[in-house]
Amino acid sequence: MDSLAPAPDDLLRARYAEAHDLPALPDNTVIETLLRHRSVRAYLPTALPQATLETLVAAAQSAATSSNLQTWSVVAVEDAARRDRLSLLAADQAFIRQAPLFLAWVADLSRLARVGAASGRTLEGLDYLETFMVALIDAALAAQNAVVAAEALGLGTVYVGALRNHPEAVAAELGLPPNAMAAFGLAVGYADPAVPSGVKPRLPQRLVLHRERYVPGNEADAVARYDAALSAFSETHGMGRTAWTARVLARVGTAAGLGGRDRMRAALAALGFPLR
Amino acid sequence: MDSLAPAPDDLLRARYAEAHDLPALPDNTVIETLLRHRSVRAYLPTALPQATLETLVAAAQSAATSSNLQTWSVVAVEDAARRDRLSLLAADQAFIRQAPLFLAWVADLSRLARVGAASGRTLEGLDYLETFMVALIDAALAAQNAVVAAEALGLGTVYVGALRNHPEAVAAELGLPPNAMAAFGLAVGYADPAVPSGVKPRLPQRLVLHRERYVPGNEADAVARYDAALSAFSETHGMGRTAWTARVLARVGTAAGLGGRDRMRAALAALGFPLR
Repeated sequence: MDSLAPAPDDLLRARYAEAHDLPALPDNTVIETLLRHRSVRAYLPTALPQATLETLVAAAQSAATSSNLQTWSVVAVEDAARRDRLSLLAADQAFIRQAPLFLAWVADLSRLARVGAASGRTLEGLDYLETFMVALIDAALAAQNAVVAAEALGLGTVYVGALRNHPEAVAAELGLPPNAMAAFGLAVGYADPAVPSGVKPRLPQRLVLHRERYVPGNEADAVARYDAALSAFSETHGMGRTAWTARVLARVGTAAGLGGRDRMRAALAALGFPLR
Repeated sequence: MDSLAPAPDDLLRARYAEAHDLPALPDNTVIETLLRHRSVRAYLPTALPQATLETLVAAAQSAATSSNLQTWSVVAVEDAARRDRLSLLAADQAFIRQAPLFLAWVADLSRLARVGAASGRTLEGLDYLETFMVALIDAALAAQNAVVAAEALGLGTVYVGALRNHPEAVAAELGLPPNAMAAFGLAVGYADPAVPSGVKPRLPQRLVLHRERYVPGNEADAVARYDAALSAFSETHGMGRTAWTARVLARVGTAAGLGGRDRMRAALAALGFPLR
């Protein structure tokens, strides 16, 4: 924690674009670390301290996992040439080349398949959509613990959903067996202090938190205010003045906006996930 | 942190069943909180302090979200009768009744659908498996931040995958709109100190962490040792003396082991997810 760290209320006002009406939150180092999160998209080439990777993975393995099945793995890529190739497969994002560590989080049913094979069994349950969902959720819980650990160590991170743009090619690059797919990536390194990053505003809490039953309520006004807040934030951080609604329409308005991921069903089938 | 808290190396030895060969980890409050995680399956009826829910959700909203789409929501259930009904839908697990707060984490594309509708658009991208995966991952990242925040506040939690046993009935109970599904639950409360819980051993780190490329290596010996370690842990914690391999075979060996979730594809279709 640096000594200029904002107090939690400042973090809340940043997170909710000044518009929060939340009560005072408890003063707690861990919660402050969580509220302070920002995605880092520009890195120094500085190497990570010894034992960083092992610490992140120990944190990741400490997350809950459905029925203790542990249906995830992680491939740690440090080799610059491999990071370069992965970057090209993931929308050519420069930070994958910059950051010294790239983690590919794998929804991994292959280990269970091997455990079954060692007992002479084919595990029928692995073919179901449900079990793939378990693996995705497991991988995300684990990765988020690694992110929190990294930020606690003063490192920056950014998730890379574009690792799903070419699932088969990524699997080949990482040598994944059947029944394993790289669900998302994570770049890890020291943030370049010359490039501004900040706590990104989110939707007001009342839009995502429902009590007892889901009631959408009047979202339109809140979304209009959020559009304005996010436009201002994006402009300040060199990402163009685009409202949230416009980003949503561009990203999920058409199949073409999915960046090739509209063929995910076929890609997963090719990787050994029939998703029955 | 209580004053009897084990040092990080003790936590690592618990997490890896004595078998770790990891370097010394940095001494850090946040990382210690992560390593200390245990799932809590017995709760006191004690009410939560004011602002707990808002703190957990602020932490959750501070997690990364794919393209800032924020494709998750959470329904906070405190009403005892509703917790009872949800418990019956989720394998009749008593802790859902015991814990004062139950959070249903929702993979929620309905908000984006409403944003599109407000612009006169039907968002084609919402129909794809990829976008459902985004929502599942978003929900999991958010929930894990809430778990870390809860544990930092001295609370216990346990995820409830059985909330997927009857997706349509759960959606009806929570009033979910189309394009939303309760991906998993989370019970939150004070652990009952009379019921033992502990840091559950996981697979050795070398089985889940691969360097540069995925190489399964010799898993059989490690799994055999893990079977023994987990049997011993389970017996100590009143969960019966069952090896990991036996649990895996029971859980995913057959479609019947999925607890009804083998019909997830149909359930999701009914909830408005064609998963193209």
